[in-house]
Amino acid sequence: MSATLTFPTTLSSQIAPYLPPSDHLKDGDASVPWVTLTFATSLDSALSLSPGVQTLLSGPLSKAMTHHLRSFHSAILVGVSTAVADDPGLNCRIEGVVGNGIGRQPIPIVLDPKGRWQVHEGSRVVKTAKEGNGKAPFVIVSSDIDAAVVQDRDVLLKQCGGGYIRLAVGGNGKFKWEDILSTLKSELRVQSVMIEGGASVINSLLENEASRKLVDSVIITIAPTWLGKGGVVVSPERQHGESGGYSPPRLNEVKWLPMGEDVVLCGRL
Amino acid sequence: MSATLTFPTTLSSQIAPYLPPSDHLKDGDASVPWVTLTFATSLDSALSLSPGVQTLLSGPLSKAMTHHLRSFHSAILVGVSTAVADDPGLNCRIEGVVGNGIGRQPIPIVLDPKGRWQVHEGSRVVKTAKEGNGKAPFVIVSSDIDAAVVQDRDVLLKQCGGGYIRLAVGGNGKFKWEDILSTLKSELRVQSVMIEGGASVINSLLENEASRKLVDSVIITIAPTWLGKGGVVVSPERQHGESGGYSPPRLNEVKWLPMGEDVVLCGRL
Repeated sequence: MSATLTFPTTLSSQIAPYLPPSDHLKDGDASVPWVTLTFATSLDSALSLSPGVQTLLSGPLSKAMTHHLRSFHSAILVGVSTAVADDPGLNCRIEGVVGNGIGRQPIPIVLDPKGRWQVHEGSRVVKTAKEGNGKAPFVIVSSDIDAAVVQDRDVLLKQCGGGYIRLAVGGNGKFKWEDILSTLKSELRVQSVMIEGGASVINSLLENEASRKLVDSVIITIAPTWLGKGGVVVSPERQHGESGGYSPPRLNEVKWLPMGEDVVLCGRL
Repeated sequence: MSATLTFPTTLSSQIAPYLPPSDHLKDGDASVPWVTLTFATSLDSALSLSPGVQTLLSGPLSKAMTHHLRSFHSAILVGVSTAVADDPGLNCRIEGVVGNGIGRQPIPIVLDPKGRWQVHEGSRVVKTAKEGNGKAPFVIVSSDIDAAVVQDRDVLLKQCGGGYIRLAVGGNGKFKWEDILSTLKSELRVQSVMIEGGASVINSLLENEASRKLVDSVIITIAPTWLGKGGVVVSPERQHGESGGYSPPRLNEVKWLPMGEDVVLCGRL
């Protein structure tokens, strides 16, 4: 088991206004959960040096912050490429949560429309769940996928309390964000979800006004380095409005928090 | 004449350690001037939406900071694309410098190997010089260029105290940074230069270890917006070391200063 992390209260009080409300409810009868978008980039907006390569960017405080944030969310969501490349644990290792059962652990969610993620007994998230250090993941696949393709994996995940969820995709082969989020709420009673990456997940959320409106807060760590051309970057495709113009997404209610060598940017879309 | 700007002393004292020494000397007998690299980007590292399009990114404090910084440098340098696209004034409009003659105004330097910049009577930098609100520019062109090509422009600039400087280019058609900087020192007695852009100038400085070593400090403003794919971005080409590995440039002695909605990152390479 990895070490338990702590996050200084001086910093956590600064971030508190950007976290889900304490009752985990965005709005009494909202059909979608609270959404926090969070990730770490270089100065040139790269998450990693190249696809499939995990790149350590930010310092130890930033890692502790990620786990602190996870403790305030009922789910954490990543794309299939992140699950495949990083084999992540997707649990919360912050002091106060660790060792107190899995009640306050977030549910890992993996977006995997084509069923590419070969989750198995040895996957870190499965081992973590079996050891009682986190919840088992739910994987969202396209309802076009033959159920037999993921049947063994579904059985494995069900044994740990997770499973596969089928969801319709649009003509572009992608899920709609509104569908993903309302499914998380209706099927898993998720009240708040932290979306952590990778680049295509983040860019798709930032790309159009409709999905940006689903994001309640944004928490980005920036490290003082340039990964250089060829990195996996956060930079949305430009979608032009009805008037033909392009208005770049911009954060409001901005707060910049220096954190070690990095900075953390909190804001709302 | 544009309005005089002021920059709060609470912020200027924070930035002071990243400015050239007060005697403007990097080192008694250094062959090159002190170099400050400074620019403003979006979160996705873009200077502008597309080539030739000036994009307002940062807030009024950041603009005041740029002019504050200019008052500490004996020259400011931009690439030809910036000169062509922005028609910049390249003077210092900070309180205390404005209205006190051109003694403390920086010398504008334009890197223009192919002599593309059609500077004329109506160019803002020329008008600014003629009005006594700034110094006239020096344009560095390739020594391969036929002198007749820039002769009229040279005459115009000489009338205001500027002119053209010829400098050898390498096989790639570009100047070497060491040559540019030593020329500024030997021909114009420049003791400190602020390099402001655009993207190809900045990337070429960041691209290899030799040129990075010429940079004494870096001051970057980041605005909380994404310009989206297709922007003009700061992201150096990766040059691999002798061992074949790539070590991304990273800033040291880092300080992050929130400034309005933006953040200013100070560091050393």
